[in-house]
Amino acid sequence: MSVFFSDFEVEWGDCDEAGIVFYPNYFYWLDCTFQRLLKSRGLGQRQVQTEFGAVTPLADAGMQFRAPVRYDETIRVEAKIMVWEERRFRVDYRIISGDKLVAEGYELRAWATLTPNGLRGAPIAAEFKRRMT
Amino acid sequence: MSVFFSDFEVEWGDCDEAGIVFYPNYFYWLDCTFQRLLKSRGLGQRQVQTEFGAVTPLADAGMQFRAPVRYDETIRVEAKIMVWEERRFRVDYRIISGDKLVAEGYELRAWATLTPNGLRGAPIAAEFKRRMT
Amino acid sequence: MSVFFSDFEVEWGDCDEAGIVFYPNYFYWLDCTFQRLLKSRGLGQRQVQTEFGAVTPLADAGMQFRAPVRYDETIRVEAKIMVWEERRFRVDYRIISGDKLVAEGYELRAWATLTPNGLRGAPIAAEFKRRMT
Amino acid sequence: MSVFFSDFEVEWGDCDEAGIVFYPNYFYWLDCTFQRLLKSRGLGQRQVQTEFGAVTPLADAGMQFRAPVRYDETIRVEAKIMVWEERRFRVDYRIISGDKLVAEGYELRAWATLTPNGLRGAPIAAEFKRRMT
Repeated sequence: MSVFFSDFEVEWGDCDEAGIVFYPNYFYWLDCTFQRLLKSRGLGQRQVQTEFGAVTPLADAGMQFRAPVRYDETIRVEAKIMVWEERRFRVDYRIISGDKLVAEGYELRAWATLTPNGLRGAPIAAEFKRRMT
Repeated sequence: MSVFFSDFEVEWGDCDEAGIVFYPNYFYWLDCTFQRLLKSRGLGQRQVQTEFGAVTPLADAGMQFRAPVRYDETIRVEAKIMVWEERRFRVDYRIISGDKLVAEGYELRAWATLTPNGLRGAPIAAEFKRRMT
Repeated sequence: MSVFFSDFEVEWGDCDEAGIVFYPNYFYWLDCTFQRLLKSRGLGQRQVQTEFGAVTPLADAGMQFRAPVRYDETIRVEAKIMVWEERRFRVDYRIISGDKLVAEGYELRAWATLTPNGLRGAPIAAEFKRRMT
Repeated sequence: MSVFFSDFEVEWGDCDEAGIVFYPNYFYWLDCTFQRLLKSRGLGQRQVQTEFGAVTPLADAGMQFRAPVRYDETIRVEAKIMVWEERRFRVDYRIISGDKLVAEGYELRAWATLTPNGLRGAPIAAEFKRRMT
């Protein structure tokens, strides 16, 4: 899989009193990028539910912050699915602003099918994996 | 109906680079207060759907800003349903921080029933109005 | 002044349990569009402070909601400064998604100079008005 | 140091279309809890700047998600500073809803002094550490 990326303008409202991005917003951009990656393969959240009866709940997420970002900058979030386990996959992210490395993070997502008794962990559908790689 | 109120701490992440609350957050607190008002009558969003098959979509909202608020303050949002039309009701809000009047706003909400063809405007259920007044 | 516009993807995280945009986010997009309008004239928040020693605090904002918007849609926010008073100006907004009118709103913004004793209302700088019209 | 905790109502607007908390909000609650922990020792962000000329920028953050949370629940975020390095400290968090373990996370924060040339990493002030332990 090649690197997928998505660009975001850092908005006035994304920054805190110190004039730098309030950090939960970085995770918002990670999620946005993941959703856009899904859509780029014709697999938005609704398609995943319709085609596979499944969702991809988050199991784990983390980020290392390398340099602050301010209002007026445009950041690029790069995403790549790096690990496929039987029931989980890991997306690695890299956030840059021009030449500046801003942050590196990841999301570990599970595969869960919608059953009458709620969500149930399950092996990742082969077709989902095929289209995402 | 007496005035319902709900208190909120102004968090670091709620403020912008100018050190004052980023204004969309005020509308978030209005919505929170409306939901808590519903719940105080045993009518959370889910109960309204279950009991009445209805939702209360927003038709109109507005706010006049009187004084800025900063991180470290606790605001109180006061809510009162002031107008009952056949199909809509208006909630008036007043936001204070101690003695300081921060903002005055309103939400105009409609009554809509969930039908197989989507939402449909309808007269407000008498029992809903009774419990909210 | 011609109409300025800015496009936004509606993200998964922008929607609530009903599957439609949680309404405070519309005001976030209004503010983003205003900031981008400023920047399109070489007048970001920081330039306004540097060049004029001023800020543009919000006095009043409101919105009428015409149609819901869901994850997967791209909205366009159109902005136009419609009223210039001596000390305040009003920006009118129109939000569309394709052919669908989503919402109409406005922001009334004041002109305030940064003084040693805090913000003070003042007549709008002629040069600011000239560049924004 | 005993465990500090802070309670948060899960609001309608905090949840996504799947009816569960949109995950960046958990990090918002972590930051809120950290700020409240500071304030409980008389050391809000502004006091840290005034007394020590310092800030506590985030170096790293992560979270493991154990169980989803829905609108109507109240969560408790427990915080404890677990590691003191010379220039960094780690806050460990545990989020519960009643008896349910919701998530476990951490923030690794650095100590940086405000200099004319911007932020500069520095050894943590002994007095700060004393009051936080």
